[in-house]
Amino acid sequence: MPQFLNTADAGFEQSFTALLGAKREDSPDVDAIVAGIIADVRARGDAALVELTAKFDRLELEPAQLRISDAEVDAAIADVPAEERTALELAAERIRAYHGRQMPEDAQWTDGSGATLGWRWSAVSAAGLYVPGGLASYPSSVLMNAIPAKVAGVSRLAVTVPAPDGQINPLVLLAARISGVDEIYRVGGAQAVAALAYGTESIAPVDKITGPGNAFVAAAKRRVFGKVGIDMIAGPSEILVIADKDNNPDWIALDLMSQAEHDESAQSILITDDESFGRAVAEAVDKRLETLERRAIAGASWREFGAVITVRDLDEAAALSNRIAPEHLELCVTDPVALSGKTIHAGAIFLGQYTPEAIGDYVGGPNHVLPTARSARFSSGLSVMDFLKRTTLSQLTPDSLRAIGPAAEVLAKSESLEAHGLSVTARLDALNG
Amino acid sequence: MPQFLNTADAGFEQSFTALLGAKREDSPDVDAIVAGIIADVRARGDAALVELTAKFDRLELEPAQLRISDAEVDAAIADVPAEERTALELAAERIRAYHGRQMPEDAQWTDGSGATLGWRWSAVSAAGLYVPGGLASYPSSVLMNAIPAKVAGVSRLAVTVPAPDGQINPLVLLAARISGVDEIYRVGGAQAVAALAYGTESIAPVDKITGPGNAFVAAAKRRVFGKVGIDMIAGPSEILVIADKDNNPDWIALDLMSQAEHDESAQSILITDDESFGRAVAEAVDKRLETLERRAIAGASWREFGAVITVRDLDEAAALSNRIAPEHLELCVTDPVALSGKTIHAGAIFLGQYTPEAIGDYVGGPNHVLPTARSARFSSGLSVMDFLKRTTLSQLTPDSLRAIGPAAEVLAKSESLEAHGLSVTARLDALNG
Repeated sequence: MPQFLNTADAGFEQSFTALLGAKREDSPDVDAIVAGIIADVRARGDAALVELTAKFDRLELEPAQLRISDAEVDAAIADVPAEERTALELAAERIRAYHGRQMPEDAQWTDGSGATLGWRWSAVSAAGLYVPGGLASYPSSVLMNAIPAKVAGVSRLAVTVPAPDGQINPLVLLAARISGVDEIYRVGGAQAVAALAYGTESIAPVDKITGPGNAFVAAAKRRVFGKVGIDMIAGPSEILVIADKDNNPDWIALDLMSQAEHDESAQSILITDDESFGRAVAEAVDKRLETLERRAIAGASWREFGAVITVRDLDEAAALSNRIAPEHLELCVTDPVALSGKTIHAGAIFLGQYTPEAIGDYVGGPNHVLPTARSARFSSGLSVMDFLKRTTLSQLTPDSLRAIGPAAEVLAKSESLEAHGLSVTARLDALNG
Repeated sequence: MPQFLNTADAGFEQSFTALLGAKREDSPDVDAIVAGIIADVRARGDAALVELTAKFDRLELEPAQLRISDAEVDAAIADVPAEERTALELAAERIRAYHGRQMPEDAQWTDGSGATLGWRWSAVSAAGLYVPGGLASYPSSVLMNAIPAKVAGVSRLAVTVPAPDGQINPLVLLAARISGVDEIYRVGGAQAVAALAYGTESIAPVDKITGPGNAFVAAAKRRVFGKVGIDMIAGPSEILVIADKDNNPDWIALDLMSQAEHDESAQSILITDDESFGRAVAEAVDKRLETLERRAIAGASWREFGAVITVRDLDEAAALSNRIAPEHLELCVTDPVALSGKTIHAGAIFLGQYTPEAIGDYVGGPNHVLPTARSARFSSGLSVMDFLKRTTLSQLTPDSLRAIGPAAEVLAKSESLEAHGLSVTARLDALNG
C-alpha cells in the first residue's frame, strides 16, 4: 500500500516532511575501487581497458577492437525492424527540432562610455557519452544525450557502451548512428569514464562526459570532474501527478506505474482534490499490478515510496508540488496552463490528460534527462547549454578607459591590489600625459 | 626567473606540456574536519554556530547577534569615503547592465502535430553567498556574485561573512547593500556553508550557494552539493597575454603582475611573436617587482609558474591559447577582434591595449568569477544563468497524441517498459474507440 495523506489531517505536515526526506537510494561505496580503476587506465591505457573488459564484461578484445567499426554498426543495425527504425527517427527529429530552438545567441554592444562589450558561445570541442549495457541500455537515452551535443556543434562525440559477453543492443547503435555520433567504443564502467577523461592509445580524451550509469560510473564521473565537465549525477526517477476527479483513474494509474517500473527506488505521487478519486486510482494501480511485466519492481516502488495526497484545492496542490520540486510533473486538471503558472519548481511539466509522461521519455521533444531528488529547485534538465560555454568580451577605447578606469583604480587600492591599479594608472598616465 | 620557451626549439612540446600539467595548488585535506562541522551544525543549529564562531573567529555572540542588523550596516558604511562609494556604485551599475542582457527568454510554440512545446525560466527561490573575511574579503566579489542573483530574480539572498575578532570590512557591507542583499550573517568557514545548506534557528536554508572561500569552505561546498546547488570550485587565478611588439612592455608587465599578486599559485603567461619584446617585458616585470607592495607573492608566482613563450606567428599563439584555455586572455595585437575569433577556449577575453584585465575585475561589466585550471574548455563564468533553472513544457492534443503516440508505444516496447507504452495505449484506445 502506498501512503495515503490528507492535508486536512492533524499529522499531515509531519508525514509530508518524512515523505520529502525519505532516502530512497543507498549507493554502495565503490569509491576506492573506482580510484584504482582510474589510476590503472591512466597508467596503462588500452592494456588496462582490455584487461578490465575481459574481467567485467567477459569479453576478450585486442586494443584495435575496442572501437566498433562503421562496418560492424552497419551489420548490427541492418536487422532492426522498420517500425523501430521509423520510431527512432521520428523521436530524433522531434528532439533535434526542440533542442535547435535552445541555441543561445551571441551578443555585442557599445555602451555609453564607448566600451564594446558582449559574449560569445562556443561548443565544447569533444564530448563523451556513457551508455549503460544490459537491461538499462536505452536507445532513447542515446538520442537525448547525443542530439543536444550535436545541435550545440560538438565536433567529436564519442560513445562508450559495455558489451557484456559481446552483446550490444542494436537499437543503441542505430540511435548513435541517427544522432551523428562519431566514435563508438565497447567498453564500460569506471574504466570507460577514465578513458574518456584521460585518453588512451585508442580513445582520445574528451572535455565533457554525460550519460547515466551505475554506482561505479557515477563515482568515476565525480572523480574526473574538474579534469573534464560532467552532467548531473541522476538519482532514482520521480513523478508527481496532480489530477482532479475529471480523469480516468486507469490512465493516471498507468502514469504512476510508468515511473515505478523503472526502479524499486523510483517514486510516484498523486495529489488530488478528491479523496475518492485518489482511492479509485490506487485501486486501478492494484489492478494493473496484477499483470504488468515489471510488477515486482513497480509494486515494490509503489508500496515503499508511493503516496496519494488529498488536498483542499489546487492552490494547496501547487504549494506541495513546489516543496517536492518533482523531476516530472503531470497536470491533469481542467486548466493546466493556469496551474502550471503556480508550479514553479519542476524539471518537466506535462499539461493536460493527453500528455502522459511517457511521451516526454521518447517523442515529445524536450529532454528526458532531468533533475531528481528535489534538485529542480536549483537545476535544469540536459540541454544544448550543457555542451556550450560562454566567453565574455570587453574592448575599451582610450576614452572609455578614461571614463571608467579611475573607479577601477580606487577599488584596486581599497582591496590592496596595487598592480591591478597600476595597470590602469600606467595607461591613463600615457593617455593624459 | 619565469620559463622562457620558444616554439622553434626542439624541446618545446615537452616543456609546454609540463607547463600545462603543472599542479599549482596543494589543497590540504580537510574533509574529515569539515564533515564533523557540518554534522554539528545540522544537529545543534545556532548553538554550534555560536561555539564555532567563538573558536575560529574569537568572537562571542548570542544567537540573536548572528545576523548583522540593518542599523549595524548603516553605522558601518557611514564612514566609507565618497570616492569609494561612488566607485562601487559605478561598478554595480555596469555589472547590473551587463548581466541584465543575459536574461534568457521563455519560449512556446505549436508544432506540426498540434503539440504545444516550450520552456520557462524561473529564479532559484533563495541563494546564499559566501564572502571570505580578512585579506581576501573583496567587495568586488560581493558585487559579482550578488548582482547576477538579484538580476535573475532571487527573492531571498543571504550573505555570510566571518568577522575575525569582530572585524568586517565596511566596503563588503556597502557592496552587499548596493547589490540588494537581503540578510547578512557574521559567520564563516564550513559552519556558514552548513547553515546555508541545512538551515538553523536563525538562518533559513537556501537552494544555491556561491562565492569563493578557503579549503574548508571549498570542501564544505563539495559536501553539500546535491542538497543545494553550488557554483564552481575555483582554483588559483591565471592570465594569458598575447602581445605583439607594438606594446609598452611595462603595461604588459603590470597586467602579468596583476594576476601574480593575487596568490603564489597564480599563473601569468605571455605569448609573443617577438622574442626581444618578451625579454623586454620580463625586464619590466623585474623592475616592477622591486617596488610592488605584494612583491613577495607576485615574485614567487612569476618565478615558479610564469612563462614567456615566443611563437612564429599569431596563429600559433591562438593554437597554444586554446590548449591553455585561460581564465583571462588579453589580446594586445593590431587586430584583436580577428585574433579573438581564433581563441575559442577562454573565460574572458580583453581586446586591445586599452583593456587591462583589472578593468574586468572591477568595472568592465562582465563577471570576474571565471573558470580556472583549463576548465574554460567546458564551462563558463558566473552569470544570471547560475541563479535560474529551466522547466520544459509539453501539452499534446488528442490529434497530436494520435500522431506521435504510436512511436512512443514502439520505443517503450523495445525498451521493455510496458507501463510506459500502456499509458499511451490506454489513451489512444479511448480516442480511437
